[in-house]
Amino acid sequence: MKKYAFALALICAAAIGLNSQTAPPASAPQFTPDGKVVLPKDYREWVFLSAGVGMTYGAAEAGRQQNFDNVFVNPAAYRVFLQTGRWPDHTMFVVEQRAASSEGTVNKGSVGRYQSDLISIGAEVKDPSRAPEGEWAYFSFGKNSDNAPLLPKTAACYSCHSQNAAVENTFVQFYPTLLPVARAKGALKPGFKQ
Amino acid sequence: MKKYAFALALICAAAIGLNSQTAPPASAPQFTPDGKVVLPKDYREWVFLSAGVGMTYGAAEAGRQQNFDNVFVNPAAYRVFLQTGRWPDHTMFVVEQRAASSEGTVNKGSVGRYQSDLISIGAEVKDPSRAPEGEWAYFSFGKNSDNAPLLPKTAACYSCHSQNAAVENTFVQFYPTLLPVARAKGALKPGFKQ
Repeated sequence: MKKYAFALALICAAAIGLNSQTAPPASAPQFTPDGKVVLPKDYREWVFLSAGVGMTYGAAEAGRQQNFDNVFVNPAAYRVFLQTGRWPDHTMFVVEQRAASSEGTVNKGSVGRYQSDLISIGAEVKDPSRAPEGEWAYFSFGKNSDNAPLLPKTAACYSCHSQNAAVENTFVQFYPTLLPVARAKGALKPGFKQ
Repeated sequence: MKKYAFALALICAAAIGLNSQTAPPASAPQFTPDGKVVLPKDYREWVFLSAGVGMTYGAAEAGRQQNFDNVFVNPAAYRVFLQTGRWPDHTMFVVEQRAASSEGTVNKGSVGRYQSDLISIGAEVKDPSRAPEGEWAYFSFGKNSDNAPLLPKTAACYSCHSQNAAVENTFVQFYPTLLPVARAKGALKPGFKQ
């Protein structure tokens, strides 16, 4: 009987071990001891929300280079949003800016553009204990840096997201698969119109 | 002792059950009995490779609407590619076309565009047992259809991907995080130039 229990324990441990190897990596935001947010090594495997091109925060800027932006969110937060239309604490968005290229095989001579070099990375984290005020905190990564300090509350992102975003401080109006979820769950900000 | 073994078995079963609930869904392509590929319900949670805008397969078409395209690949195949620079059997790409919108909060008056309504979905699957020739098979989903028949080998996708793609039949030249992997692994097609 002892042998049986021991064998069962071994099988159990093996099963748990096997599962933990195949389970998705934890996707909650990580911070350095001095409060910088760490760029998750696997953020490109997070859930993609949308991409834009030439998006600006104000009036058109003539001659401005039109970059792409890609938005990713941590999978755990995404799943909560699908259920509730709202973001849980420890939601983390990673936003990439990438150059737009137009020369390449197949696409030659076309007016199309595709993504190439990384230009910048920013992050938005829902964490009232870190946000200078409210619930959302903003971070900007330097070139090739794997962590980023908190931006001060005077940075434009705080007021712009707070005033213009469709759900909390997030631009769900630009995420075509999430906008219907927010609508269905009644999570759009009162007065938000697109 | 029997009780102990029984309790251990219960814990073991619970642990396996719990893990199977949190484990990622299997991402290999699924087919109907008559050979249509099934649109994975969770493909938006697959790994995003890149987005383009106005990409065409030939010369510029004046006045043609510039749509976005998003490319997703099943996570299991993505992980093999990162290790080897090559795609395993049962790799599946899902390509979305989405309309480009330019009116909306924040982005008002800007030249920027963001993604909105879904226009079409296609799939590319590595499966020599299904491809009409070679290893890669192509599928086109109808409006609101959750499965798609195999396209005949006369469809343009077969020859275009075969002739122009950087790695096997896949346009890795347009996926900025995978192109360096393919280069490092020596997986670019002989003669491929960008």
